[in-house]
Amino acid sequence: MSLRSALLALLSSGPLTGYDVVKQFRASVGHVWHAPDSQIYPELRKMHAEGLLSSRPVPWGSRGATKTEYTITAEGERALREWQDTPLDYVRERDPAQLKAAYFEWASPGAAAAQLRAHIEHYRQQRAQALEQIRALEDRTNPTLARRLAANPEDQWERITRFKVFAYEGQVARAEQEIAWAERGLRLLAELGDPDGPGARETP
Amino acid sequence: MSLRSALLALLSSGPLTGYDVVKQFRASVGHVWHAPDSQIYPELRKMHAEGLLSSRPVPWGSRGATKTEYTITAEGERALREWQDTPLDYVRERDPAQLKAAYFEWASPGAAAAQLRAHIEHYRQQRAQALEQIRALEDRTNPTLARRLAANPEDQWERITRFKVFAYEGQVARAEQEIAWAERGLRLLAELGDPDGPGARETP
Repeated sequence: MSLRSALLALLSSGPLTGYDVVKQFRASVGHVWHAPDSQIYPELRKMHAEGLLSSRPVPWGSRGATKTEYTITAEGERALREWQDTPLDYVRERDPAQLKAAYFEWASPGAAAAQLRAHIEHYRQQRAQALEQIRALEDRTNPTLARRLAANPEDQWERITRFKVFAYEGQVARAEQEIAWAERGLRLLAELGDPDGPGARETP
Repeated sequence: MSLRSALLALLSSGPLTGYDVVKQFRASVGHVWHAPDSQIYPELRKMHAEGLLSSRPVPWGSRGATKTEYTITAEGERALREWQDTPLDYVRERDPAQLKAAYFEWASPGAAAAQLRAHIEHYRQQRAQALEQIRALEDRTNPTLARRLAANPEDQWERITRFKVFAYEGQVARAEQEIAWAERGLRLLAELGDPDGPGARETP
């Protein structure tokens, strides 16, 4: 149900066409909860059918065509509050990078180090992206935030902004921790020297 | 395919009955890659059908009953190496705790702080569990590790052990980062004072 919550949160900043939901999702909440476009449109239709969103046709282009614009309903707002007030159900640990690292003795020479370097590169990109989001929130150039602030009284602006910054700070901290872990792994590999485990031997 | 890799890794320490796979999975690799028992049995049968495992009936109890014991095949070992040598496909970010935090203005008074305290509690447990695993690896009381070491030449023991410790160090570091992030969130909530956002208002 997290995609639904993410869409309700996005639409709580004001009405959007389906197309703009997809566009703004990618540029804002999608950084914290990734979803492909192909999941977003059907979910909007389901939420509309369940009364969480209302819709109306809005003109599109010059040939009398229309697009569907969605607005969060009072029921949608209630669902958003309910999500916030329901304790999170933590899922059990499933980390593919840690799983791999636990059995690095099966890796070919060089493969474990390559994996750790790719890990560092991935989380450097994640960190850069999260820092960019924080910058756009703090200087209020993030368009989704601008819409949200415009729809709320000014005494709420700091609160609204700082919660979003806080979420991305979590991404930055996690990225830094993953980078530090992989760097520790590279030092471990250097310390252990050339591999001679089952991964360095051919299967007969 | 991570469950399959985790099962191959577990069985690379020596033959196990299906029942012992489930038991040892829970006490070792399952801490890094959680899977319910109900997924493990069918996956073992599939891996057997695909030639990654061989099987033989072994006596069970005193009434002539048997259990199936699985052994990793040369093809299974090849699959294990291939998994180690294939770069990881990083999935896009999906963090339900960060998603929630980004919209804490929708939470009822007290709900955001309760969420952050539950986050801290969850990761304290994760950290304690990972530290316990590290202890059992380092003093070699972990039974799966003992089997694995017995099946490998002594000059490989340090390598095999330290990779597993390294994986759990990643869990400890992540847990500590999540705790620090949630503590930062509690300080932020204290600083912002009593909520007065949409979450504190009733839907009309």
